[in-house]
Amino acid sequence: MVRIGIDVGGTGIKVGALDKGMEIVASSSIPTAKDLPFAVQVEQIVDCVLKTVSGAGLSPDDIESIGVGIPGIASAATGEIIKCTNMGWNHVPFREEFRLRLDKPVLIENDANVAALAESVAGISRNTSSSVFITLGTGIGSGIILNGKIWSGFHGIGGELGHVIMKLDGEPCTCGNHGCLERYCSATALIRMGREETSKRPDSMMLTMADSDPMNITAKIVIDAARAGDPAASDVFRRYCEYLAQAIGSVINFLDPEIIVLGGGVSKAGSFLLDPIRALYSQYVIFRDQPMAEVDLAVLGADAGIIGAAMLS
Amino acid sequence: MVRIGIDVGGTGIKVGALDKGMEIVASSSIPTAKDLPFAVQVEQIVDCVLKTVSGAGLSPDDIESIGVGIPGIASAATGEIIKCTNMGWNHVPFREEFRLRLDKPVLIENDANVAALAESVAGISRNTSSSVFITLGTGIGSGIILNGKIWSGFHGIGGELGHVIMKLDGEPCTCGNHGCLERYCSATALIRMGREETSKRPDSMMLTMADSDPMNITAKIVIDAARAGDPAASDVFRRYCEYLAQAIGSVINFLDPEIIVLGGGVSKAGSFLLDPIRALYSQYVIFRDQPMAEVDLAVLGADAGIIGAAMLS
Repeated sequence: MVRIGIDVGGTGIKVGALDKGMEIVASSSIPTAKDLPFAVQVEQIVDCVLKTVSGAGLSPDDIESIGVGIPGIASAATGEIIKCTNMGWNHVPFREEFRLRLDKPVLIENDANVAALAESVAGISRNTSSSVFITLGTGIGSGIILNGKIWSGFHGIGGELGHVIMKLDGEPCTCGNHGCLERYCSATALIRMGREETSKRPDSMMLTMADSDPMNITAKIVIDAARAGDPAASDVFRRYCEYLAQAIGSVINFLDPEIIVLGGGVSKAGSFLLDPIRALYSQYVIFRDQPMAEVDLAVLGADAGIIGAAMLS
Repeated sequence: MVRIGIDVGGTGIKVGALDKGMEIVASSSIPTAKDLPFAVQVEQIVDCVLKTVSGAGLSPDDIESIGVGIPGIASAATGEIIKCTNMGWNHVPFREEFRLRLDKPVLIENDANVAALAESVAGISRNTSSSVFITLGTGIGSGIILNGKIWSGFHGIGGELGHVIMKLDGEPCTCGNHGCLERYCSATALIRMGREETSKRPDSMMLTMADSDPMNITAKIVIDAARAGDPAASDVFRRYCEYLAQAIGSVINFLDPEIIVLGGGVSKAGSFLLDPIRALYSQYVIFRDQPMAEVDLAVLGADAGIIGAAMLS
């Protein structure tokens, strides 16, 4: 028997078949096709699942369950996907449509929640009972694990740390509000701060690395320039770390999980990110002389989505 | 049999004996005596418990359990009170000392958590499984109920919504950091904003009500003046409501409880506070077109501490 994990991403949909030991025994992927009719999108995903299973030398009868991680929200009760912008889905009966073609248990969750679950079962936060997983990507995603289970809220709309207000009347956010946490802690924030800094300090290595065009500055360029000792990039990265440390302090003050896990693009900076964060965050915790959550980096990488989705139950 | 609830406050310690129906059948209180030796403080509390029980016509044998709500943190495992500034307690073996004099089960919790529990069992949030209780007082306290139980965090230091960063580099906080949520949403914040406003608008009714001395301005004065239509006070109160609505939106985005309950001094403004909050908060929720937590006012008032403490188990 295998469990199927499906990771619906911005550019591709990845499918993996996992054995009892939660090892990926086969996987395949298809491109994200936003503009196709819903029924065709689901048909392609089902076909990809069947292909993956047969690639593992198994038949559909060997499928125990199917978990789907989506960048959006779904109703656990009805299997409806309420919103998933990447796929153009608004209130689509995903489970129902899927089971017309492949009648198996289908579970759907937000992708950050799924990654949080994966890390808490098979990754850096395994053997912990509560954790908050934060993805530092284009936006900020987050997943909360409490007593070993995903807490996505009473109405299924929680875990959106990125839209906690971090600066009243601050930067405008894509959500329509101002000062959301993801405007200060995401890769996008790091890029914005890098670009702003080069307008004041045009001699920065960041500009050289970006072929003299600030619009070419990426999070990697800011991090690489800071790592190389460029003063402007170092200032930007230090400020970014201070913001992220305050965000982590806020999570601890409010929720106090056992561990906080950082994932997503910016976390690829490794100890260059983790070391300053670890040095900074406890000062933002109100009971700073008490035992508190450790901060660590995610370890499952790109497979977290498949693994966590397969773990849904 | 009765359950004893003890509410350790800033000026007094209240003790109540509750019957099976969670009705208070007897109560008494003693003043908070910060400067006495720890053993004497505990002796006075035990005496007050015994007096309360005999006042109900009962004996110590009739005591089932003793719950204590403190403005601070305690270890559930050891019964040690780690910090309780009001009483001058730092790492004191409260349960141990108490049981030397009265050998009953002793449970200790943070007072905001205790009030959250009380409301969720016997108050406005009864029949809900998850809630966040926010006290709008001198500071901001908060208590989280998940799956019917207090969630005070893995290390017991959670539920401190007041120290979530709400404005990067904002107002200095008593905790040593800047921009904490309680600097914008507490009664103290309302008073500060009122005082600042009168320095720009000396014709405000707030000053008249404060005998022309801005230092006499209280939260009640700001609210009463706003209610009476004073333009300066109305502007201040509107701004306060916008901040609080953003705080509530943040709680929903991150934790998504079934209900959010407002208590503490400012909540005495009743519908004058609740109506604008209800009109404002959903715009700060990322999935604002989905079902989300209602916001309501606490109903147990000053007895919440005793009732919730007695409910601890």
